[in-house]
Amino acid sequence: LQDDFWLSEHIAVPYRTFKQRYLVADQYWKKDNGPILFYTGNEGDITWFCNNTGFMWDVAEELEAMLVFAEHRYYGESLPFGNESFSDSKHLNYLTSEQALADFAVLVEYLKSSIAGARHSPVIAIGGSYGGMLAAWFRMKYPHVVVGALAASAPIWQFNDLVPCGTFFSIVTNDFKKSGTGCSESIRNSWNAINHLSSTDAGLQWLSNTFHLCSPLKNLQDAAVLKNWLSETWVNLAMVNYPYKADFLQPLPAWPIQEVCKFLKDPSLSDKALLQNVFRAVNLYYNYTGEASCLDVSQTATKSLGEMGWYYQTCTEMVMPLCTDGVHDMFEPQKWDFDALSEECQRMWGVRPRLSWILSMYGGKNINSHSNIIFSNGGLDPWSAGGVTQNITNSLVAVVIPDGAHHLDLRSRNPLDPKSVQQARALEICLMKQWIETARHSH
Amino acid sequence: LQDDFWLSEHIAVPYRTFKQRYLVADQYWKKDNGPILFYTGNEGDITWFCNNTGFMWDVAEELEAMLVFAEHRYYGESLPFGNESFSDSKHLNYLTSEQALADFAVLVEYLKSSIAGARHSPVIAIGGSYGGMLAAWFRMKYPHVVVGALAASAPIWQFNDLVPCGTFFSIVTNDFKKSGTGCSESIRNSWNAINHLSSTDAGLQWLSNTFHLCSPLKNLQDAAVLKNWLSETWVNLAMVNYPYKADFLQPLPAWPIQEVCKFLKDPSLSDKALLQNVFRAVNLYYNYTGEASCLDVSQTATKSLGEMGWYYQTCTEMVMPLCTDGVHDMFEPQKWDFDALSEECQRMWGVRPRLSWILSMYGGKNINSHSNIIFSNGGLDPWSAGGVTQNITNSLVAVVIPDGAHHLDLRSRNPLDPKSVQQARALEICLMKQWIETARHSH
Repeated sequence: LQDDFWLSEHIAVPYRTFKQRYLVADQYWKKDNGPILFYTGNEGDITWFCNNTGFMWDVAEELEAMLVFAEHRYYGESLPFGNESFSDSKHLNYLTSEQALADFAVLVEYLKSSIAGARHSPVIAIGGSYGGMLAAWFRMKYPHVVVGALAASAPIWQFNDLVPCGTFFSIVTNDFKKSGTGCSESIRNSWNAINHLSSTDAGLQWLSNTFHLCSPLKNLQDAAVLKNWLSETWVNLAMVNYPYKADFLQPLPAWPIQEVCKFLKDPSLSDKALLQNVFRAVNLYYNYTGEASCLDVSQTATKSLGEMGWYYQTCTEMVMPLCTDGVHDMFEPQKWDFDALSEECQRMWGVRPRLSWILSMYGGKNINSHSNIIFSNGGLDPWSAGGVTQNITNSLVAVVIPDGAHHLDLRSRNPLDPKSVQQARALEICLMKQWIETARHSH
Repeated sequence: LQDDFWLSEHIAVPYRTFKQRYLVADQYWKKDNGPILFYTGNEGDITWFCNNTGFMWDVAEELEAMLVFAEHRYYGESLPFGNESFSDSKHLNYLTSEQALADFAVLVEYLKSSIAGARHSPVIAIGGSYGGMLAAWFRMKYPHVVVGALAASAPIWQFNDLVPCGTFFSIVTNDFKKSGTGCSESIRNSWNAINHLSSTDAGLQWLSNTFHLCSPLKNLQDAAVLKNWLSETWVNLAMVNYPYKADFLQPLPAWPIQEVCKFLKDPSLSDKALLQNVFRAVNLYYNYTGEASCLDVSQTATKSLGEMGWYYQTCTEMVMPLCTDGVHDMFEPQKWDFDALSEECQRMWGVRPRLSWILSMYGGKNINSHSNIIFSNGGLDPWSAGGVTQNITNSLVAVVIPDGAHHLDLRSRNPLDPKSVQQARALEICLMKQWIETARHSH
């Protein structure tokens, strides 16, 4: 998709530089200071985000815009210490959102000074998920660099006690409840079914066979891993519950939760019958192409995401409290346990998370002095629990897409798009044009 | 002056903390969310800034305000690595303005959450010189933490090519020109007089004796040090040219440049006669109390300033281009030489300065999306060359005090204060009250 591809040097630490990858597409760009849409890369390979942010490609011609996709340090090929980046936790000291934003600021200025005709180009930050947080924070911290930001499905309030920790999983549950009779109840009942079976070796064996697991379950701890993997699968399905066949985290049919729920109609079945259905459901998620010979409970998301880097970030800045109660959601009850996280982080990386750091840095709910940020949220997306879903001021605008999953608005136009996402995109484009016009007149 | 004194722990690097010193005075504070005036400490001992910022003490009762003076990391007693802070340049990696601002943000939040009745206290940042830059940047980067900032004599534009490098020294020169006939000419002529004398051993000896130097000059390099020391002395006199007897950098009489210029009326004297007068002039600066037995060319400023830390900062972020031409100023011509600085920094600390970093971080002249910052400038102060001297918007207000030297407005009220500084303070207080009122109503 991209027609150009460069690497630039950025300073990581005093006296050291690293190569940061970014992608540029300028075929629609008006060379006389046409706007730049700048994707603030998140926790993964930038080519993958580039290929899943069709919205930017769709609007490039209309806005006569240059597209830039900047890779986040410590992800993809932008590794400050190369292959050693994760081998020693002291190499990770420079993996922070603040440093990533500074990289973006320096990159934008480099592009504007080095590309002929870009000197006065208004730049708009665009990102989804953590990339959406970065887009919003980029506008907050560097309003001299970007004239505005589109922060799609950005849970900037999923920190500390700004929102209830349980909303996230109740949204997931609602998605399943609405997608088929008996569906969320089947999943709620599946946990005890697994608990019963995993109490015997024969049961563990049966579970391993039934779920076609690559590595058989050996004990209760392995059974806990299985349950955790199932939970993450339901969450991921809620995130990618798109209205058309798509391949974001996995190749999936349209409205995949509805497809999954076709297997989960009867919550009153026996343990084994229920779990055979649960297998059919997750098998749809992991094996829609039919290529998988077994299912691997250590894998949930795509390999395009940088799991190690993100884990470190959740152990330092990105502490997002989540919890379940089994009543308002279909999951096993689990309290938010900061101390357990902190111990795990100490063990893994020798660091402890700072619960209120992100609030201190980026203001929490006290952000009304900023301007020109669109916060878009999908009503089906669990991350909308921590998103900005009501306007804060005239220029801090919340957009809600009731039929949308995780940053549906950033995906390519599709004939099956619901009206709500079409309207959301229209508003986003309209506001971006206003920002561009205002920037133009201020010159 | 302060009635309270605490030390708090702050995170310097992952897994490490350091004790940051701050001073609190709350005798006039209205305990029901009265405002907090927060001094953003600069490159020195915070008690010294506390004792030289009488303005805050003068307005505390009227505003029913708590005063907080926060020490900048790596200065005074706030040393992240204790006595080792400067012994290894890798310990200095955490000495940046960004880290200092984050310290301030965390400290403000700590105070608001731990002091009863301070939870909704509006906080105003106040600082002078580099502390003034920090106050302005604090409001820009943390508008959720401070409702406004008074940035006194803050040369936020003395970076890169935002202002001409020569204005600084031409302001110094004007101060001397206005303070006595022949004064700036005498100084301009003194350089060649020193050059002539320092070409012989007898001349070096004569200079050493005449200037009562603690260490005699041995060669041309020493003579260059002498000239540099004289230049810095004239600059310092311009900074502290206050209308009354004061003791900021040195104990001095009222309008010290006028006093100095009484010795420098005749620029046409012979080399030796001219330099004897120059000695009398600098002796007034260094020995007004008559206690000095000799003059030390390695000392210019007060020991309350942290020279090592500031030198490191000028070698990393705080690169402020300055130059002289000997025509528009009274100094020996000297071009701005970034490469020489860079080499020196590499030699000293193993770092190289980044010329455009401060602009990338804080926006340079492109800061009009921010709000509630007062930039005050003294017309006599060379640092006004890099200051904001014209309003940028309705809420980014420039205040000019024609008769003021370096942050005169932050000093205690004095019967000899010129009308211009009285009016400047009145405007500053009025705007601060507006910010406090607006903050109060938003609750």
